[in-house]
Amino acid sequence: MTNAPSLSATERTRHRRLRENGRTDRAELDAVLRAGFLCHLGVVLDGVPMVVPTVYGATADTLYFHGSVASRSLVASPEAEVCVTVTHVDGLVLARSVFEHGVNYRSAMVYGVPRAVIDPDEKLEGLRVLTEHVTPGQWDYARQPSRKELAATTLLALSLDEASVKIAEGFPEDGDGPDGELPVWAGVLPLRTVRGALLPDPALRPGIPLPAHLAALAEE
Amino acid sequence: MTNAPSLSATERTRHRRLRENGRTDRAELDAVLRAGFLCHLGVVLDGVPMVVPTVYGATADTLYFHGSVASRSLVASPEAEVCVTVTHVDGLVLARSVFEHGVNYRSAMVYGVPRAVIDPDEKLEGLRVLTEHVTPGQWDYARQPSRKELAATTLLALSLDEASVKIAEGFPEDGDGPDGELPVWAGVLPLRTVRGALLPDPALRPGIPLPAHLAALAEE
Repeated sequence: MTNAPSLSATERTRHRRLRENGRTDRAELDAVLRAGFLCHLGVVLDGVPMVVPTVYGATADTLYFHGSVASRSLVASPEAEVCVTVTHVDGLVLARSVFEHGVNYRSAMVYGVPRAVIDPDEKLEGLRVLTEHVTPGQWDYARQPSRKELAATTLLALSLDEASVKIAEGFPEDGDGPDGELPVWAGVLPLRTVRGALLPDPALRPGIPLPAHLAALAEE
Repeated sequence: MTNAPSLSATERTRHRRLRENGRTDRAELDAVLRAGFLCHLGVVLDGVPMVVPTVYGATADTLYFHGSVASRSLVASPEAEVCVTVTHVDGLVLARSVFEHGVNYRSAMVYGVPRAVIDPDEKLEGLRVLTEHVTPGQWDYARQPSRKELAATTLLALSLDEASVKIAEGFPEDGDGPDGELPVWAGVLPLRTVRGALLPDPALRPGIPLPAHLAALAEE
């Protein structure tokens, strides 16, 4: 464990479940956020929840994300809170009993009132963070946003101050009880996301070499 | 395209974006739901959105899911709507311009007021659907829920009547415009979820064979 600051524990980020393991180390939040690039953004529109997948990038204290829906909800209600959830599924927990079946996962939830990023310099920096988070090396390689594109981009910033992390890992828990006597196989089916071979755009002009940062991504 | 009924198009399920491709075929909803087992469930608790990952299973017309949070929100407000979103990430779209970067994905959103499943027979059937959806073959193989476990399980049912599907696929779109002249490599980095080798529970008693339905899962 590092000496990183703890995550806050407000009423809604306090962990209520047992098997799922709540974490309070800030480094664990960073690790979950670093391990992905797609979040599920929850907003309330006209009193109804709406959950949309969107891309994010994170600094040490801020989550940047796209979101026209969040942007609409911000216009409707500038103080409206959102919940951003990032989940990585690591495996299926196959127990002796159906009841003890579960999923190994790492998940982060961030609550707060997002801020629409308006200032062009901050927007450019936020988009750099987001782009580099998803595909390191692309910001300096691809053409950066024009002023017009920047104006057409919705970028939101959310503080990481109120966040919680839950991690479920390991094997089923019914091996030591009476179910352990059952002739039922038990264990874990690991799941992970892998990258395939890069597919060149059919419209790619001949003679453009694959840059090293992309070749490295595909080889991982 | 099949002759399956179309998805509804209410105000909130009408598709607003361009590159993302809205689908209206019921078979496309079924395909997205069949391709996964983890959803992000959005509820409103005390006026604030909360997005939690949870496991689901689906029949032709109903989504069954666990959810103590949804259950709490149901108790607080029995008519409260939820939004359940299922997303599969298929790849990173690497364009010539940062602005045209994107993600290939398939996503389904289901809206409605969930119903807590109380009747023991329906609960058992719902849990069977959920279990078989996640890991086919486990319902008849593992020990089925006892009456006490059944009572301790929260199961919710949500109609699939109001749903939308969005699919983003293919290559970047800036190859034909002026950016196509840039010396920037463009294409797609495919991403997919794969299953690893089954890990036996260290507490597994010797002599219990791996059943065929699990061996088949791990080999896929």
